[in-house]
Amino acid sequence: MSDSAVLLIDCPDRKGLVARVSGLLYEHGANILHADQHQDHELGLFFMRVEWALDEHGNGHGAGGTETRSVAGDFDLEAFKAVFAPMAAELGMRWRLTSRTQMPRVALFCSQYLHCMADLLHRYRTGELACEIPVIVSNHRAVERLAGFYGIPFEFVEVTAATKSDAEGRQLQVLAEKKIDLVVLARYMQILSPGFVAHYPAQIINVHHSFLPAFTGARPYHAAHARGVKLIGATSHYVTDLLDDGPIIEQDVARISHRDQVEDLVARGRDLERIVLSRAVRWHLDQRILCYGNKTVVFD
Amino acid sequence: MSDSAVLLIDCPDRKGLVARVSGLLYEHGANILHADQHQDHELGLFFMRVEWALDEHGNGHGAGGTETRSVAGDFDLEAFKAVFAPMAAELGMRWRLTSRTQMPRVALFCSQYLHCMADLLHRYRTGELACEIPVIVSNHRAVERLAGFYGIPFEFVEVTAATKSDAEGRQLQVLAEKKIDLVVLARYMQILSPGFVAHYPAQIINVHHSFLPAFTGARPYHAAHARGVKLIGATSHYVTDLLDDGPIIEQDVARISHRDQVEDLVARGRDLERIVLSRAVRWHLDQRILCYGNKTVVFD
Amino acid sequence: MSDSAVLLIDCPDRKGLVARVSGLLYEHGANILHADQHQDHELGLFFMRVEWALDEHGNGHGAGGTETRSVAGDFDLEAFKAVFAPMAAELGMRWRLTSRTQMPRVALFCSQYLHCMADLLHRYRTGELACEIPVIVSNHRAVERLAGFYGIPFEFVEVTAATKSDAEGRQLQVLAEKKIDLVVLARYMQILSPGFVAHYPAQIINVHHSFLPAFTGARPYHAAHARGVKLIGATSHYVTDLLDDGPIIEQDVARISHRDQVEDLVARGRDLERIVLSRAVRWHLDQRILCYGNKTVVFD
Amino acid sequence: MSDSAVLLIDCPDRKGLVARVSGLLYEHGANILHADQHQDHELGLFFMRVEWALDEHGNGHGAGGTETRSVAGDFDLEAFKAVFAPMAAELGMRWRLTSRTQMPRVALFCSQYLHCMADLLHRYRTGELACEIPVIVSNHRAVERLAGFYGIPFEFVEVTAATKSDAEGRQLQVLAEKKIDLVVLARYMQILSPGFVAHYPAQIINVHHSFLPAFTGARPYHAAHARGVKLIGATSHYVTDLLDDGPIIEQDVARISHRDQVEDLVARGRDLERIVLSRAVRWHLDQRILCYGNKTVVFD
Repeated sequence: MSDSAVLLIDCPDRKGLVARVSGLLYEHGANILHADQHQDHELGLFFMRVEWALDEHGNGHGAGGTETRSVAGDFDLEAFKAVFAPMAAELGMRWRLTSRTQMPRVALFCSQYLHCMADLLHRYRTGELACEIPVIVSNHRAVERLAGFYGIPFEFVEVTAATKSDAEGRQLQVLAEKKIDLVVLARYMQILSPGFVAHYPAQIINVHHSFLPAFTGARPYHAAHARGVKLIGATSHYVTDLLDDGPIIEQDVARISHRDQVEDLVARGRDLERIVLSRAVRWHLDQRILCYGNKTVVFD
Repeated sequence: MSDSAVLLIDCPDRKGLVARVSGLLYEHGANILHADQHQDHELGLFFMRVEWALDEHGNGHGAGGTETRSVAGDFDLEAFKAVFAPMAAELGMRWRLTSRTQMPRVALFCSQYLHCMADLLHRYRTGELACEIPVIVSNHRAVERLAGFYGIPFEFVEVTAATKSDAEGRQLQVLAEKKIDLVVLARYMQILSPGFVAHYPAQIINVHHSFLPAFTGARPYHAAHARGVKLIGATSHYVTDLLDDGPIIEQDVARISHRDQVEDLVARGRDLERIVLSRAVRWHLDQRILCYGNKTVVFD
Repeated sequence: MSDSAVLLIDCPDRKGLVARVSGLLYEHGANILHADQHQDHELGLFFMRVEWALDEHGNGHGAGGTETRSVAGDFDLEAFKAVFAPMAAELGMRWRLTSRTQMPRVALFCSQYLHCMADLLHRYRTGELACEIPVIVSNHRAVERLAGFYGIPFEFVEVTAATKSDAEGRQLQVLAEKKIDLVVLARYMQILSPGFVAHYPAQIINVHHSFLPAFTGARPYHAAHARGVKLIGATSHYVTDLLDDGPIIEQDVARISHRDQVEDLVARGRDLERIVLSRAVRWHLDQRILCYGNKTVVFD
Repeated sequence: MSDSAVLLIDCPDRKGLVARVSGLLYEHGANILHADQHQDHELGLFFMRVEWALDEHGNGHGAGGTETRSVAGDFDLEAFKAVFAPMAAELGMRWRLTSRTQMPRVALFCSQYLHCMADLLHRYRTGELACEIPVIVSNHRAVERLAGFYGIPFEFVEVTAATKSDAEGRQLQVLAEKKIDLVVLARYMQILSPGFVAHYPAQIINVHHSFLPAFTGARPYHAAHARGVKLIGATSHYVTDLLDDGPIIEQDVARISHRDQVEDLVARGRDLERIVLSRAVRWHLDQRILCYGNKTVVFD
């Protein structure tokens, strides 16, 4: 992947927003690779994602060209930011400007079930996830060997009803030391306190093993089996104070039949969980997601 | 479709059930076309569906054979029933024996939205649904012309809060006169009273425009949009006293995105509703469904 | 749906295209409702679709506002075109500017199978397809009564091997008289000659009952059954000189099993055909599709 | 999973097959857990899969019962076989009788892409695949460390055009020494010779990264991109002499758009490959698959 920058914007909708942003980028010589926007007409909101090359050859044309590289070709991110910031302030924009050169730092949390963890680590290893993973945190020892295989430091933090507050304190300390940007709950079975969540707003991704909002809470496969549904689902979402209620990022389902017992649902569901969680993490890392209210815009 | 008989059974599970039923059919010379069974190990229940040819040529082999038809070849359904009934009583079986020669009689109910109705009528006309449709009932006049096009008697029954009880009385009278076996609610927007439902246990099929148990009740597409789900669904189910709570027959989903407004969900959902309702009706007519507890077994 | 204009563009990619188009629209006071673009980096091509309101209230905010309507608010499409055209010429753009006030005129062709036709007509009647349908053409009489029910003129044109050229002549004459913009082949079983196709480049949509490029040509369900596939498909595409080879617009699949005979595939396939054809027609009418090479860009 | 036996049968169809097989099992006191059959009416063939408990408590009822175990309760597999074999011979049956106590022995082959391998190994470790994996064979060293992590012997066999015949000789020797029952090609990029394939008829499972029969041969994602399809697929199948032509076991697809480049297809496809291959392996191990002609019956 060539080096590029991504600008994410949300603000009140008004005329000329696309023109002003794209005009400014043009003036700075940006070669736009992708641009997408969305309006929520009901709420009068505007959302935009624009990605451009940071070097002249980052445009995808010249995989093996003989052209000499223009010295003046590189995009000056700081100069652009200096001009863009006041315009954004004037237009009431919230914005985030990132470049692919700064890899986000991700902490993975899990408990005893390792299928999501094993899946994420394999994707990480093969370059599918554009991030650093400086730590794996768990209240079980089961993941330690797997972490070691992938060369990732493992942090064991025991959690009991009595020690939960201390445990969260220890976890937050680890996250701070490791300069973590994103926490991924890969079937982590402990509920995080509002105090913990407040440290990472829209920066904690969880996977819930049901098609939310159906079957919130514990043992959703048992509940699905009891209700006799014909499809089971899984949902990845940002974590908020309310359990299983945060902005949904991705969902998927699989067909089941009367022949499937709870353990079959659990097994089928593992494939769904892996897929919806890994998509959510990849999209977050690719700066494709904007949260607003209790919803997400996911730019494709 | 050649002439065939279907036997549906449910009973407490015990050894030898398949052997005894298939043995009896063999003794009567049945040529079995399909047989399927299911055990619910948790509840200790046994379910079976077996279909066999009623004439020697109903086996699908001899599409254009030169063999002469055996006079003795036809299966004697009454003789089989006379022997099977006492065995079934001994084994505690509930059972239903039907033959394709007796077409079930179906009443369609709808309100102002006609997409499910138009879809069912087209399928009926092209032979996809093995039934008679002697009446369409509605509290709106919108469907009358469509009913006329397909040559089906239309019964207008106005329903208001004040007249609901009288309206249901009139509807039940129509159903009795027409000797109806199955009532299909093709987006019929009135809630049927428990008294009405009691006349047709597991014989009223409804379509609900959500992925149940999420978004029960009114305006599910609005609720789905408000929650920010990434898939919408539709569910066909048998009607019971509890709203949107009966045994689920079929469900399906479609992917949506942040771009979709409520009206887009409504439009996408229409395709789902048509499909899950028409499948449920076809499976019911093909004697593929057994209800138990609040669930269904759907033999494929 | 409020009144809006859509501009579709494709041209060689270069810096500043988004800025120049959106800047020009802003200067003319356009309120952009949706904008989307795409680059094919391999071929160095740029594609854009932008939609904006033609009246001040077309922005979706003011469903029931009390504000008085600005006399100066309406967008002047002709003035915009006069300025845009020379810019487009300079940049080597192919473009198409349409407004929702001009309804495209669609001719439906079919043969003996009516499921796609019935589906399209019902969608048309309920307002799902933004077009006029001034004629239905068929080489079978089967559709005549259905056309009459929807009040659409029916044109019977017999086609035999001997009369095919004359038949196409007659069909072209009908299309010209009716000022047709789009021809939809709703399971029309005759192959159109290159001469015919040349009159309507990227303006004839066909549905093929397989997952192309698998199973081109006649009897694809038989071929799928013979190969033992586990999914069947359907494909909607623009018609070109090569049979079943034109740019693909939409595809979908359904799961089958060893239990399904050819006639089951045909029945399951009908639902797929209806859905992929109706989506293609709707997207074409909504000006969402750009063809290039043998592919399509479908803006969502 | 409790201990059970599975009997798979195929033979010419005739009356009474279900009755005779289930009758014999009943006489031997079998407690049938699942039974399923299928007729191919066109070819006049009958297929059956029946699974029964090998001990009295294997019926799933008595998770924690107080009943004393009947000494006489265990099913005598050898005694059954002695009586069944002559009946099977008389009826022209091909059959396979296996019990869960004998774990099939599986060899995994791969080349440089490890996603399917990593997925299978994780499923194996967590008990999802009922088999032994005594060896991993590869012409690349990339998998060696992963094999070591899961404690599975690794066999490096270099393959070049010149040494292919020798390499296959060495591979066959390894398979013989390890008493392998099933070979799984987890993205193994060498074509096996007919001589090799002849040693393992319907015992080599491959995954091909397209929706067969579309895009056989090399670089299917490139071909799919060039054709502009809207869905990509993957197929697991038994290997025969003809490349990508063996009996299909499972297929699945994922939606793509004009935005997806070849490398996006490759990434999306990896998830499909993992899923269709792991399902095929699991079904084969669970004795759910019967091959006939160039097709499969997959009992669910």
